[in-house]
Amino acid sequence: MASYKAPLRDMRFVIFELMDCGDITTLPGYEEATPDLIDSVLEEAARFCEQVLFPLNRSGDEEGCVFDSGVVRTPKGFQEAYKAFCEAGWPGITSSPAYGGQGLPKIVNSLIEEMICSSNLSFGLYPGLSHGACVALESHGSEELKDKYLPKLVEGTWSGTMCLTEPHCGTDLGLSRTKAVPAEDGTYRITGTKIFISAGEHDLTENILHLVLARLPDAPKGIKGISLFLVPKFFVHDDNTLGARNGVSCGSIEHKMGIKASATCVINFDEATGWLVGEPHKGMRAMFTMMNTERLAVGLQGLGIAEVSYQGAVAYARERLQGRSLTGAKYPDKPADPIIVHPDIRRMLLTQRAYAEGCRAFGIWAAKHLDLRNHPDATVRQEAEEFVALVTPVVKALFTDLGSEAANLGMQVFGGHGYIREHGMEQYARDVRIAQIYEGTNGVQALDFVGRKLPADMGRLLRRFFHPVAAYIEEKSSETTLTEFIDPLNKAFTRLQQATIKIAQAGLRNPDEAGAAATDYLRLFGLTALAYLWARMAEVSLPKIGADDTDGFYVAKVGTARFFMQRLLPQTGALFSSIMAGSKSTMAFDEAAF
Amino acid sequence: MASYKAPLRDMRFVIFELMDCGDITTLPGYEEATPDLIDSVLEEAARFCEQVLFPLNRSGDEEGCVFDSGVVRTPKGFQEAYKAFCEAGWPGITSSPAYGGQGLPKIVNSLIEEMICSSNLSFGLYPGLSHGACVALESHGSEELKDKYLPKLVEGTWSGTMCLTEPHCGTDLGLSRTKAVPAEDGTYRITGTKIFISAGEHDLTENILHLVLARLPDAPKGIKGISLFLVPKFFVHDDNTLGARNGVSCGSIEHKMGIKASATCVINFDEATGWLVGEPHKGMRAMFTMMNTERLAVGLQGLGIAEVSYQGAVAYARERLQGRSLTGAKYPDKPADPIIVHPDIRRMLLTQRAYAEGCRAFGIWAAKHLDLRNHPDATVRQEAEEFVALVTPVVKALFTDLGSEAANLGMQVFGGHGYIREHGMEQYARDVRIAQIYEGTNGVQALDFVGRKLPADMGRLLRRFFHPVAAYIEEKSSETTLTEFIDPLNKAFTRLQQATIKIAQAGLRNPDEAGAAATDYLRLFGLTALAYLWARMAEVSLPKIGADDTDGFYVAKVGTARFFMQRLLPQTGALFSSIMAGSKSTMAFDEAAF
Repeated sequence: MASYKAPLRDMRFVIFELMDCGDITTLPGYEEATPDLIDSVLEEAARFCEQVLFPLNRSGDEEGCVFDSGVVRTPKGFQEAYKAFCEAGWPGITSSPAYGGQGLPKIVNSLIEEMICSSNLSFGLYPGLSHGACVALESHGSEELKDKYLPKLVEGTWSGTMCLTEPHCGTDLGLSRTKAVPAEDGTYRITGTKIFISAGEHDLTENILHLVLARLPDAPKGIKGISLFLVPKFFVHDDNTLGARNGVSCGSIEHKMGIKASATCVINFDEATGWLVGEPHKGMRAMFTMMNTERLAVGLQGLGIAEVSYQGAVAYARERLQGRSLTGAKYPDKPADPIIVHPDIRRMLLTQRAYAEGCRAFGIWAAKHLDLRNHPDATVRQEAEEFVALVTPVVKALFTDLGSEAANLGMQVFGGHGYIREHGMEQYARDVRIAQIYEGTNGVQALDFVGRKLPADMGRLLRRFFHPVAAYIEEKSSETTLTEFIDPLNKAFTRLQQATIKIAQAGLRNPDEAGAAATDYLRLFGLTALAYLWARMAEVSLPKIGADDTDGFYVAKVGTARFFMQRLLPQTGALFSSIMAGSKSTMAFDEAAF
Repeated sequence: MASYKAPLRDMRFVIFELMDCGDITTLPGYEEATPDLIDSVLEEAARFCEQVLFPLNRSGDEEGCVFDSGVVRTPKGFQEAYKAFCEAGWPGITSSPAYGGQGLPKIVNSLIEEMICSSNLSFGLYPGLSHGACVALESHGSEELKDKYLPKLVEGTWSGTMCLTEPHCGTDLGLSRTKAVPAEDGTYRITGTKIFISAGEHDLTENILHLVLARLPDAPKGIKGISLFLVPKFFVHDDNTLGARNGVSCGSIEHKMGIKASATCVINFDEATGWLVGEPHKGMRAMFTMMNTERLAVGLQGLGIAEVSYQGAVAYARERLQGRSLTGAKYPDKPADPIIVHPDIRRMLLTQRAYAEGCRAFGIWAAKHLDLRNHPDATVRQEAEEFVALVTPVVKALFTDLGSEAANLGMQVFGGHGYIREHGMEQYARDVRIAQIYEGTNGVQALDFVGRKLPADMGRLLRRFFHPVAAYIEEKSSETTLTEFIDPLNKAFTRLQQATIKIAQAGLRNPDEAGAAATDYLRLFGLTALAYLWARMAEVSLPKIGADDTDGFYVAKVGTARFFMQRLLPQTGALFSSIMAGSKSTMAFDEAAF
């Protein structure tokens, strides 16, 4: 009964009509990424996700991964699907052509990742981690390492992991104990135990390349003494054939709430041979390259689940006959009206929709800035980098919080049928729940946002968002057709500005003030960003309503914008009050009294 | 690692210090329910829940119920626990002594139910359904039925169910198709299929008494043609021994997101013999007696899970060392500070705590009114009945929404460790999720609230809440020590009053106006009720701070009240705005455009 159709119409709207990505061909390296090419890539990806990945989603959850004596078996069909995935060239979609990639823009990748997450979140983690490893190696690896490992990663024959967490340390990587001892041949012997390693062991690829944080013998204490190493599962000969097994083994897999088809592994390194990636003690820098890529990708997981849950809920709301409309039967010929006539069902569906479409626009806004890092003008590159740095924690935390909320609304539309496994709606809620946690919990994202991004360079990062939004409000304030969108945006934006000043000032005196407000502030920022995007989407859509709007797309877009402004954006008022109340009630509470 | 200690100190505070239930002995039938007796009953229940039920919670989830050829096996240990539960007399704690019950006040039962839900939600459903069946039979059954079935239900040897839902009808019971044909002996032959029947089949009791909604041959269409029947699994001889199997069978059990140790059954009635309960075609009335009892009980499930998840999260936050306090190391001798020093962790813990303690007070406020239905003064009885009718949907929806939120916060405090099954935190989130759905989804509760309770008798029900709260604000407005609590309460209350007028007026013109605002309005009402209770809890606690407060209980209570007022109550502002925005954006959206 569950189904998924990639929202290609809306995707095209966002990239071509809203974000003007048609001109991406003017950026060096993207000359060939014409709208026609992008269209056909998206259509191909949609077909693959709908026909290959989505049908394996429920069965993958039911079957899960199986661990047996160090070996991990993925669910039935995953091997074939992964093979087809690689044959179609999806792993290297944005990777450098120098290593066999297709070098397509990040905006395209962002939409493809959304589709993969909608259709099969667990599956998506395998190539997702490889993608992060690619990015880290491309940025920080030596030419030798890149030449040796990147082509296989890009073609998907080998996969990658991120080995950060240890049993006693997650957020606080400075506590990590895994050791790296230099060997005479220039390699290192890595020893330690890493946990929660997604795709740490599986049967999809011939080799697995672990990127491992470890500590050199002379390393300074804490976070400044961490280095990054590449540790392959199998050694690789010079001719690229695989050699002996390295000292890496999978000790067990976790039993989790969801993403059961994704292997979450305990990985033991026992004098495993590793190669240094980047400089000694500078591992966190390299790891952050990977982590930032992953954080944006995790945000898209929230979006992907919001979308597929919305689609499931709409389909059910149309076909489930129950009760009559409060204003009289809408389908008197049927035994009852479909539940989509009920205002509270519509409230839930429109909330899911407004979050999914809003986050899609936000995701492309961020991805476009990733692409602008290729711009010939250094100032544009710099500003794009700053924008990405600023919004990365917001995309990660906002999208996954809203994705979780949307998945739960989708279940709720189904009533009791949402709670049983059969329809797949509860799986979305279980699967997306991890996205609020991994790659830095959403609380950690909020702390990064208020503690690092907000004060950075006297607020320069923040201006990458404040300036365009302020300019937009100013520019549109006299357009009466937009008043219903600009006014609420302006109200939210004013709250955000005031809250920013409050946090910046109070946080200087007492960092706990910023810490106590962090989660509320990130959400306030995120909702204001969505309001800006919804105002722009309404602005783009309004003139197209009428003769050209044969499928009602623009009417629906404007209608969703109205719902967002009237029913969802008011949350910013509550967040503002909570932020302005300060940290005292949070911090004065005696630790022993909890 | 997971643990549970019944919050007896807070329970005593609520019943004796806040709600003055010490005088419950003045009510007819409760003469023996002295504080000493209540105390010892609660202590005994706490011991049973902590030592017998809680240790079976995780294993019950892992093992689940097993269905095999019509038979359902509960997880290991459940039979022994249930036997001990009955031997201790818990099933009949509030039932009439005439049938072997102990006739204790509902306030006591409310607290015991909370403890059961904290320790083992799945287990609690078995006696919980029996309790509902008892109430329905006591209120609507003939003397003959009561004499025959109640004693065994009260002692727990037999259990009960509610058979309402059918594959094509849940909320809209008017669509139900199960048939009841009169037989010559005065009984009926029941035929049909019921789904989602909790405790529909299991191995805990000798017999199962199904209360079944079915339609007589001459029944009017829709909801006014539904009658209620008692259909035992085994026939019962006059000497109370069991006879042949009735035409009732379990077709399968559901595979669910959570409450896996609770059997959710498809029950087939094939010319099963049933006895009419109450009058023909008046089944909904009888069923609502049962359903209202269950709705309050489901609310307590939300509370119970909020409490146990809070306890788990606090324990973890104290022992997990990660990072340093933003204001400098608090435990410099340790490798890192416990995460309880971090403001965002405290925010999550205090939110859980404020919701759990607030709902506990609200639950007892409601339960006390259940007890007041025994009052000698008819006016008091009537007003108590009205209060219960008013708050039942609020208790059900508010407690379960907040319980779900609290369970998710508890997981979040654990980070990655919250997502794996080992620690049990994700089980709470999965288990409590059903409580937002069954016994009428929370959206249906909200519709009941705005559609029936709010307009009933020109708002008379509503006055049972508005009058005491308005009087309290008026009375305390000049007490400066309470200003920090009364002011925010007053602000929320004013919003609630304005929203009430708006919904009442707009809803008269257009019922969709009330429908679109229903969920937000119920939450606004619920948070305002919590604010009233938190103000009263602060008022009671403030004078006791000092010499008498040896364990810091009252300081913590006032601290939690402050957190609630400053950080959580502002939500009412957002809800108010969303309500006042009206239904247009929700209803104008074209059905085909979803």
